[in-house]
Amino acid sequence: MTQHQRLVEELVSTWYRTIPLSQFMQIEVLSFTDASHLTVNTKQSNPDMNLSLPLVSELITTAPLAPNINLHQTMFAGSIYTLMTLTGWGMVWLQQQLASVTGDIVLAEAQVKYIAPVRQQPTARVIWPALDLSPLTRGRRVKAELTVELWCQDVLCARFCGVYVSLPFAK
Amino acid sequence: MTQHQRLVEELVSTWYRTIPLSQFMQIEVLSFTDASHLTVNTKQSNPDMNLSLPLVSELITTAPLAPNINLHQTMFAGSIYTLMTLTGWGMVWLQQQLASVTGDIVLAEAQVKYIAPVRQQPTARVIWPALDLSPLTRGRRVKAELTVELWCQDVLCARFCGVYVSLPFAK
Repeated sequence: MTQHQRLVEELVSTWYRTIPLSQFMQIEVLSFTDASHLTVNTKQSNPDMNLSLPLVSELITTAPLAPNINLHQTMFAGSIYTLMTLTGWGMVWLQQQLASVTGDIVLAEAQVKYIAPVRQQPTARVIWPALDLSPLTRGRRVKAELTVELWCQDVLCARFCGVYVSLPFAK
Repeated sequence: MTQHQRLVEELVSTWYRTIPLSQFMQIEVLSFTDASHLTVNTKQSNPDMNLSLPLVSELITTAPLAPNINLHQTMFAGSIYTLMTLTGWGMVWLQQQLASVTGDIVLAEAQVKYIAPVRQQPTARVIWPALDLSPLTRGRRVKAELTVELWCQDVLCARFCGVYVSLPFAK
């Protein structure tokens, strides 16, 4: 098991243990890819390769329709929002783990736009904006603005923009 | 039992029957007051009284902390949003019932701002903006922009602005 797989397992168990709603919704992580280390290696060997590589860190989650249905037999707006909220939160949490920094992550504000009905199990996707988390080690907060997209196969069904704040642990 | 009490019971049973998340969250209606008929009567008897009466239609809901907790031991952002979403949806549904019109109510977009941690059972409150729902009877959609506030006693903890669209039933 890789470090990333262990972190993803810890993330999901943290959700289920501390947020009952996440377990009821059966939220799962489909994949977490992180190319930040690849970036460094590539730069050392061949700077030109940076242009062609998808040097991003991406988290993809999902949740089944059954516990998240509404009276139109599509995914409930509250479930869609919650899945996207936790996807963004999860990305900040994973990046903090990878950077070996700690902080209490809270959602300060968010906007969501529902674009199309969700008639089958969707995926929620977020890309990390390569933010510097080191201020947390100096006792300062970090603000992360993340965009999460919800897809049903090749249809974009919802877009979420959330402002997360990570607060240094009180000493 | 008054007409309003019957409608509130039907609203909550509709939520629980069709949206599993609402039942898991234990969302309840605390009160629904509707002064729209009072407005008409008052105007007929004494127009000056309009200034002193709270001539509004207000829905107040709540949900306990236990199923809606997060890892900070406060109310989970997803639960806060969902409670406010359903409070706004419920208000549109109630107003449609009172106006004897029908329409499929969906949330098109929303903004939420988290102002303070929710450490005890909150109330979500929405006031109806006295919108004309009659276009639904002529086969036209109605757009309702609602603001829902979340309070813990006298502290405003979150504010939600949602754009709901009610679509006339297909014939």
